[in-house]
Amino acid sequence: MPQNYPSILLEQAVNELSKLPTIGRKSALRLALHLLKQDDSDVEALAMALVELKKEVKHCNVCHNISDTDTCQICSNPNRNSALICVVENIQDVMAIENTQQFNGLYHVLGGIISPMNGVGPADLEIASLVERVKQGGIDEIIFALSPNMEGDTTAFYLFRKLADYDCKITTIARGVAIGDELEYADEVTLGRSIRNRISFSTYNTPT
Amino acid sequence: MPQNYPSILLEQAVNELSKLPTIGRKSALRLALHLLKQDDSDVEALAMALVELKKEVKHCNVCHNISDTDTCQICSNPNRNSALICVVENIQDVMAIENTQQFNGLYHVLGGIISPMNGVGPADLEIASLVERVKQGGIDEIIFALSPNMEGDTTAFYLFRKLADYDCKITTIARGVAIGDELEYADEVTLGRSIRNRISFSTYNTPT
Repeated sequence: MPQNYPSILLEQAVNELSKLPTIGRKSALRLALHLLKQDDSDVEALAMALVELKKEVKHCNVCHNISDTDTCQICSNPNRNSALICVVENIQDVMAIENTQQFNGLYHVLGGIISPMNGVGPADLEIASLVERVKQGGIDEIIFALSPNMEGDTTAFYLFRKLADYDCKITTIARGVAIGDELEYADEVTLGRSIRNRISFSTYNTPT
Repeated sequence: MPQNYPSILLEQAVNELSKLPTIGRKSALRLALHLLKQDDSDVEALAMALVELKKEVKHCNVCHNISDTDTCQICSNPNRNSALICVVENIQDVMAIENTQQFNGLYHVLGGIISPMNGVGPADLEIASLVERVKQGGIDEIIFALSPNMEGDTTAFYLFRKLADYDCKITTIARGVAIGDELEYADEVTLGRSIRNRISFSTYNTPT
């Protein structure tokens, strides 16, 4: 369908906005027209926030999470247990786990997951630096908190082989029927694993 | 739910992005992290496009459509029929009608629709300037192309009263069963009106 934008400036804004994921040309037009109705200062605040984010944000030199400082707030917090490292795919996973308020260790953000289909191999991820952290000692346990799918399992298995020689416990987050789910609608693999990996009822609600 | 953003810059970007309509905080985070993976120049291009759009874009001094110039491309096009004005709510409607390639007149963009519920009265819209255009003469016909709902009908009726004294024909776009629709699923108001306002079959496909 031909689009007759009444303004080249508008068309440029729509072009740029529609490069964002999940935003098509119709949504981009709606967003651009919304911005036109806002104050100049609001639009500049948005533009500045995006440019500054891109220019100024750092990655923590320990865990590779996004950070405003060279070492992130979590890694530099003396109250956190530095002998416990939770390995996650990306920063959303860090935020999700932090929101549970159930974990007081440190993280290691891989920056992705091994996925031959998408051309992501072990060398593209922060795996060497994880092995280095473990090699330097002082780590009691590594927890894999990776997505329960083919790529997550592949990555976990690869990491397990890389870390097997070091003297630290390797665990993975529990897989099972989600709280609030109906048992009869749980898929059979999940349900099967949750029976195989059943846990003592008395430890069920014990905090780590 | 508390959100623990690992970076203040990221949080600011999420705050700004989530002010946009239809974008919640989860989508905003996804967009911000997507931008972090892009080149600096891509993020700057987006930011610049938004700021320039807001700063530089004009409204046509005749029809109030968005424009890069003082008078828009449609109003300044000598091949268009300046005796025919189509009244629409907003610029998306202009684009929709332009895409049909069935209209060769000019437009008048009201910039909204009379809606007491949303606090929009006649004074908030470009109604005075429409009356002025008609008053200056040379207009044969005004076509109302407003949405077929309560607000659209109210606005059309208000405009009709304002323009009734001038010597120009006032029409409204046809309301009826949409092409491709099943008759049995058409709502009864639409179907009723389409029977009441039936048209001669021989004129059905005649271009304007």
